[in-house]
Amino acid sequence: MEHKNIVFIAKSIDGFIAGPKGEIDWLDMVPNPDEDDMGYFALMKEVDAIVMGRVSFETVLGFNIPWPYTKHVFVLSNTLKNIPNELQDKVSLTQGSLEEILSDIRKKGFGNLYIDGGKTVQNFLKKDLIHELRITSLPIILGKGFPLFGILDQRLEFEHIKTKVYLNQLVQSHYKRKTQS
Amino acid sequence: MEHKNIVFIAKSIDGFIAGPKGEIDWLDMVPNPDEDDMGYFALMKEVDAIVMGRVSFETVLGFNIPWPYTKHVFVLSNTLKNIPNELQDKVSLTQGSLEEILSDIRKKGFGNLYIDGGKTVQNFLKKDLIHELRITSLPIILGKGFPLFGILDQRLEFEHIKTKVYLNQLVQSHYKRKTQS
Repeated sequence: MEHKNIVFIAKSIDGFIAGPKGEIDWLDMVPNPDEDDMGYFALMKEVDAIVMGRVSFETVLGFNIPWPYTKHVFVLSNTLKNIPNELQDKVSLTQGSLEEILSDIRKKGFGNLYIDGGKTVQNFLKKDLIHELRITSLPIILGKGFPLFGILDQRLEFEHIKTKVYLNQLVQSHYKRKTQS
Repeated sequence: MEHKNIVFIAKSIDGFIAGPKGEIDWLDMVPNPDEDDMGYFALMKEVDAIVMGRVSFETVLGFNIPWPYTKHVFVLSNTLKNIPNELQDKVSLTQGSLEEILSDIRKKGFGNLYIDGGKTVQNFLKKDLIHELRITSLPIILGKGFPLFGILDQRLEFEHIKTKVYLNQLVQSHYKRKTQS
């Protein structure tokens, strides 16, 4: 069984995942008449579960749409105590160090994980726990907002796997973490 | 005559153009046995002059290589007073507002300009004076350093023109500023 932690996320040219007030309207700036999923469903097939932070979780809840995930979701939070009743079997709250959390998730039989949310991705990268990056750049400079990447103590080298342009405007690059020799 | 201000620059996945001490060793992280210029000579053919900041200028001088530019270089600086004798006819010092500087450069007959250097690119973007971005992403997360982009007061929308992968590892995307309607 594979045990990859995969990031799949969209950013502006200047590396923001949301505007200063959390704005994500620009994610729809390019018309997508045929509703191209841009690799999302392929990702969902590859992963066994999703790991996200509290902010992402609450953002999704705030959309007031049917629960969108077909895989189990682990929410990292030290403050959340409860999850809505109807999500009891779809969502688990977890806390502790990322290493502990991952060990626990893997023991439960989940292999490949989709790591979602800005802070969560940053924390995983800090500990060099990301195996694959799938980053989609939209053709806009936001100028300010929530950055995808944070400060790291070390450089992380990746290997470029492939790049595909969606809708003639969105550039999606896949990178694999270079294994240390 | 075209009057485009074009950025051509390399960055890390996380948007740095140099490490915290100005490190640019990672620019050579991908072997380039056939010395692919990755669009640099095509750019040089397209532009009539180069505009760069003092830091970039002094960096190039510090390389102790023959002067590498075939087009006239305008150096933006309020502090530099002199340029080396052998560069008198190749380099001009300019100061003032970017609008004044550009007006002056264009009056001198230079149309398309290659805008180089981190701070200079940021200052041009602040005033929405960039028409084309040609950004090459290298497969590394630096974690800290000199960022390509700075804070802006406004969003800037671009149109994706093309993306090409060099050496199977470097992703170069060309963007054109969307004209306001």
